[in-house]
Amino acid sequence: MNESDMKVAQLRAEEVILKYLPEEKGYPSTVISAINYSVKAGGKRLRPIFMYETFKMFGGEGEVIEPFMAAIEMIHNYSLVHDDLEAMDNDEFRRGRKTTHVIYGEGMAVLAGDGLLNMAYETALNAFDIKGVNKSRVINALKILSGKSGINGMLGGQACDVDAEEKKRDVDLDELMYIHENKTGALIEAAMKIGAVLAGASKEETEKISRVALLVGTAFQIEDDILDVVGDEKVIGKRVGSDIKNNKITYVTIKGVEEAKKDAKEMSEKAIELFDSIGRENDFLRELILSMIGRTK
Amino acid sequence: MNESDMKVAQLRAEEVILKYLPEEKGYPSTVISAINYSVKAGGKRLRPIFMYETFKMFGGEGEVIEPFMAAIEMIHNYSLVHDDLEAMDNDEFRRGRKTTHVIYGEGMAVLAGDGLLNMAYETALNAFDIKGVNKSRVINALKILSGKSGINGMLGGQACDVDAEEKKRDVDLDELMYIHENKTGALIEAAMKIGAVLAGASKEETEKISRVALLVGTAFQIEDDILDVVGDEKVIGKRVGSDIKNNKITYVTIKGVEEAKKDAKEMSEKAIELFDSIGRENDFLRELILSMIGRTK
Repeated sequence: MNESDMKVAQLRAEEVILKYLPEEKGYPSTVISAINYSVKAGGKRLRPIFMYETFKMFGGEGEVIEPFMAAIEMIHNYSLVHDDLEAMDNDEFRRGRKTTHVIYGEGMAVLAGDGLLNMAYETALNAFDIKGVNKSRVINALKILSGKSGINGMLGGQACDVDAEEKKRDVDLDELMYIHENKTGALIEAAMKIGAVLAGASKEETEKISRVALLVGTAFQIEDDILDVVGDEKVIGKRVGSDIKNNKITYVTIKGVEEAKKDAKEMSEKAIELFDSIGRENDFLRELILSMIGRTK
Repeated sequence: MNESDMKVAQLRAEEVILKYLPEEKGYPSTVISAINYSVKAGGKRLRPIFMYETFKMFGGEGEVIEPFMAAIEMIHNYSLVHDDLEAMDNDEFRRGRKTTHVIYGEGMAVLAGDGLLNMAYETALNAFDIKGVNKSRVINALKILSGKSGINGMLGGQACDVDAEEKKRDVDLDELMYIHENKTGALIEAAMKIGAVLAGASKEETEKISRVALLVGTAFQIEDDILDVVGDEKVIGKRVGSDIKNNKITYVTIKGVEEAKKDAKEMSEKAIELFDSIGRENDFLRELILSMIGRTK
């Protein structure tokens, strides 16, 4: 995909996210600093980009998308801060920088994650104040955001993953797919579905784009499993081989690298086929979906 | 106050809360079990009771209050689960039962807290689906809930407390008041303010009841500090003297037990004066506010 188009999309997402970050002042300045540190650590901003591009594809206009772009990135970041905790994956580096708990301590990192999750809802609620906004759409978007983030979405997948690890219980392919679809897929699904709903897409269109997103999210996570085996540490910004070291069951350990690559490619093709069947156009988004496969970071 | 009236109020709150707890099934059943364990551990259900009684005082009718009663108790419980973590206060008992992280492990307890916080918003959003509901009031209630729970409310107070402790920094009375007003006061304020807003109270009435709540919440926390020194372990369900053991600055260490008791009493009297000036009646709520002072548990 076109690198400079992606750069523009990232800068746009970045600008929106920064607008909603709190000022580091007053008594709780330490936790605010920890919150901002974790969000400003960078990352690809994929979820707000997917959201914005889907919104545009369905003819969305105005600023209503912005609080939701910031909110979904906050939810993604809270999950990273908590995943990295000593009590969880105990990761000291992410995106080449020290993780939040390493800098601010374990307790403050728990609070920073909590603060981000809560702030996501505080932020998204701003959408109601935008002049001329369609409130029913905002209500639907809030329901999607909270539903896909919780026990029936991202958190459910994450909890299942942690549970298997703590009990040294081997997951089978069904459970692994559940984990992938939820831990990673659910938030990408939420991003695109919210973009569609806020733009006023039809029920059928929203249904289709959700399925596209779930395929993309799952393929994305399979690619992550592949990168853990064949990736370049300097490019992906974290240690390679940590899944193997931790005896973790991944898509790759179950099916092998080649089969995993094949499946990810098939999911991506199916996603594109479904995407094209919607009959709306967004070349950038189409390219972005394609670029999820065979990526090197 | 009348014990049996309180019992009825608690059972009513309990019933509403249980209605919104998830079924322990499917892949994420462990985290759901941890969530339910922490909420079902009991407690006084003060926040939903304050909310419900304020709603009634201002003539509120219908079921719109219920999702918010459950939501605020979920937020209160998430904060307890995370406060008790090894990374925070490392408390092994609460309300005479083992804490969530002791039973489910530190990582799962982090996720249970996250799940509860997210579920609070999922639950509160149900209010929009109640037939004939005033959507603007629900939007306002959601804003109060998220605003008072985050960095400008409960979480801000908690983070400030943790920050002072980690840095072994002595807080002065101003900062301690900030901590008390936010860590404990903010959620009680949210409870009563949401009750007022959902019932359609006037702006002036809502303003007054918020000030009542903040006074009550702060007095309540001062009483907690007093109980840590003079309480009965068997009655309060946790260790006595843990603040002193941890060299923690509390209202009592700054002002002494007698002065602390006097201040809590004054706040309570001021709260009642303000309460009476509103000119609406709820004898149970009035008694409940009075009972916050001089309590033994």
